[in-house]
Amino acid sequence: LTKCFLLQVVNILLHYIKKMFDVKSKILDFHHPHQLLEGLDGLNLELSGHPESLEQLLVDCTDTLKYGVKTGHPRFFNQLSSGLDVVGLAGAWLTATANTNTFTYEIAPVFTIMETILPKKMYGIIGWGETEADGIFAPGGSISNLYGILVARYKQYPEIKRQVMTALPCCVLFVSEQVSINFCHHQGHIPFCVTASTGSAVFGALDPLQDIADICEAHRLWMHVDAAWGGGLLSSGNHSHKLSGIERANSATWNPHKLMGVPLQCSAILIREKGLLEACNEMHAAYLFQPDKLYNVDFDTGDKTIQCGRHVDVFKLWLMWKAKGTCGFEAQINRHMELAKYFCKVLKKKDNFKLVFDAEPEFTNVCFWYFPPRLKHIPEGFERDQELQKVNARARLIEKGTAMISYQPCGDKVNFFRMVFSNPATRRADVDYLIDAIERLGKDL
Amino acid sequence: LTKCFLLQVVNILLHYIKKMFDVKSKILDFHHPHQLLEGLDGLNLELSGHPESLEQLLVDCTDTLKYGVKTGHPRFFNQLSSGLDVVGLAGAWLTATANTNTFTYEIAPVFTIMETILPKKMYGIIGWGETEADGIFAPGGSISNLYGILVARYKQYPEIKRQVMTALPCCVLFVSEQVSINFCHHQGHIPFCVTASTGSAVFGALDPLQDIADICEAHRLWMHVDAAWGGGLLSSGNHSHKLSGIERANSATWNPHKLMGVPLQCSAILIREKGLLEACNEMHAAYLFQPDKLYNVDFDTGDKTIQCGRHVDVFKLWLMWKAKGTCGFEAQINRHMELAKYFCKVLKKKDNFKLVFDAEPEFTNVCFWYFPPRLKHIPEGFERDQELQKVNARARLIEKGTAMISYQPCGDKVNFFRMVFSNPATRRADVDYLIDAIERLGKDL
Repeated sequence: LTKCFLLQVVNILLHYIKKMFDVKSKILDFHHPHQLLEGLDGLNLELSGHPESLEQLLVDCTDTLKYGVKTGHPRFFNQLSSGLDVVGLAGAWLTATANTNTFTYEIAPVFTIMETILPKKMYGIIGWGETEADGIFAPGGSISNLYGILVARYKQYPEIKRQVMTALPCCVLFVSEQVSINFCHHQGHIPFCVTASTGSAVFGALDPLQDIADICEAHRLWMHVDAAWGGGLLSSGNHSHKLSGIERANSATWNPHKLMGVPLQCSAILIREKGLLEACNEMHAAYLFQPDKLYNVDFDTGDKTIQCGRHVDVFKLWLMWKAKGTCGFEAQINRHMELAKYFCKVLKKKDNFKLVFDAEPEFTNVCFWYFPPRLKHIPEGFERDQELQKVNARARLIEKGTAMISYQPCGDKVNFFRMVFSNPATRRADVDYLIDAIERLGKDL
Repeated sequence: LTKCFLLQVVNILLHYIKKMFDVKSKILDFHHPHQLLEGLDGLNLELSGHPESLEQLLVDCTDTLKYGVKTGHPRFFNQLSSGLDVVGLAGAWLTATANTNTFTYEIAPVFTIMETILPKKMYGIIGWGETEADGIFAPGGSISNLYGILVARYKQYPEIKRQVMTALPCCVLFVSEQVSINFCHHQGHIPFCVTASTGSAVFGALDPLQDIADICEAHRLWMHVDAAWGGGLLSSGNHSHKLSGIERANSATWNPHKLMGVPLQCSAILIREKGLLEACNEMHAAYLFQPDKLYNVDFDTGDKTIQCGRHVDVFKLWLMWKAKGTCGFEAQINRHMELAKYFCKVLKKKDNFKLVFDAEPEFTNVCFWYFPPRLKHIPEGFERDQELQKVNARARLIEKGTAMISYQPCGDKVNFFRMVFSNPATRRADVDYLIDAIERLGKDL
């Protein structure tokens, strides 16, 4: 019965995958929240509290996928994480079946070993050498960054573990676009860390890491690099120079679930000085981390985290790395960059599109405006911006369900599209389609 | 090719599941970390950097499972999370295939709706009424508790969002076994929150929630209940009274991946006052949470969290609830409690076992010592404790791989076993087997 039920579910999933990769299928069948809540066409998300038959569960699985978004569709450009790597998916299915937790070697011997191998591979690529650093997988880039900052603070103020927070001076963390560090000292605030970003979410902007590293060295500050998005570029010989200076950082966040296309979630926090992560976060819970175990307890990772238990996120990445090799990731990332260049080139030739930045893209983000015919005759300036802000061609794309792309205002720039390449299924024809579709659906807006 | 590869992987997984449920198979084939690192019998965890064939990947999948721990085996008693619910597993496979993120309705319409339905169901069971509270799924109990405490602090000091931390008074959080609240005021420290625990990890101890609620009301303190482990008892009419008082809490953590047997990870943080979670954590990232979307953006949950993106943990629980109904969870939990009672009864009859607490178990944790024959003649006291601490019968169980159970010292109590029932596959015969095995393997220790 178990086998039969699971095979039927797999059948539904395989059918979904096949359809998802078919460019002619819709990415989504859009409905409003109240429609899904109220139920439609047999779909009922409410829980009655009574047991349902296995047949009904299969229908529910089909419906859940039917009303969802096909994030692996070749024309899904909406997020930094997109695409569906089949080997990565197999890894996720296996992980779910193993149903264990990464906190001790005892209950996850293979996965905890892999969690030493992959960070080593990653900080080797960063350029920290291969033997002395540390790293774990955390639930997403924000938590990875949090780990980086906790360790930075602990390094400067180890007494934080024993004393209350107010015993510390007012600690200041610098992020992109900051005031000067000397001014801050004058105010009695003590800087302890600078976080640099490589690959901002909207523009894909890359901070000048060498300059930041110089400042951090001069002021003895911890340097954390948020390379959640940018980290993937390190796999490419052609593009890794854009992160030059990351080898001087003290810690880095790198999300393989973004540019490298590993299924969600897969985010690494890498710390250059081995031992700090544990010293900062350890609680020595005697019921989990008994020192008198029968094996070398160095592989019990739970004390490195504030989480204790952690989902196994490493296996998907391990299996994909086996399948692709380092060169496979490189080829994939080079292809994304080539598509970004191609997309820019096409847009530049069209007079109803305008790039937010004219320069050749440093990353796979390409930001642009679309001008419907009625706006072409309004001169640049406040009035045109007001109108442009309202041109929501994206909404029509979503309603049609044939392509999905992000848009947003940013700073003084009114609503613009953000195209981004991270989906391995995307081809030039899909890019051409997107431009046509925006023109077609937006011309009377 | 995709279909063929995935079906072969599924075949490996189904074979594993079948073996796992077979009580005669080993739970683990124990090896030391250095053995797995060095590689054995064809197993090679290191990444060469070169692409491997799909056939090799299938071998890798088989090996990964072979050297892992079968956490769903009927005699795996090692963790609060154990067992493998097949419907939950199907849910996890579907979630992996959908490969999306819970932060916006836009890219996860069905899952974000489910993330309103399930918390509502859960806080309904807690007794907060069904319309006004709030909740999300977080990566594990520790992060859920963190959310509870962040919201508690925000409620008392909303200025934390704009001012630096040192602008606040020295805030104090009370956890179990604390000094008095008045004393703390004398010291100039301001209490803001009490966290109560229902189901401590080792003993399964339940804090007196009504008394704590009285104190919190009198002192106007936020009451957070960590019911990560204990929450499951609420599903049972026979046992929910043990959490009486939780209906007076301001926030609660409840992990369906523990007592309710949902595959890892599935942890909810429930907040009684709607709106606080968002007010506390929102950052208004314009590139994700555009207010001019074409749908009601109340379902974009990303601004409720410090994480932004979150793994979809809700679907497994939703599907299991559909399959079992509320009564199915109730029956499962009653069975765990009955097994705990049975286990105690059997141990009491044996003179080479001793319970750490003689009373009937309040929860499914049962802590006990085993005395090998040579210790039976040493009188109770320091010398016997010294010897008992060294009796590591558990190590032998792990080496044999036929059962897995946790052990630890706690406070003044030397190493003892912690039996715990949360694995739906466990039967009385497995309990009997465990006792026999400890006697057999431990008699000459």
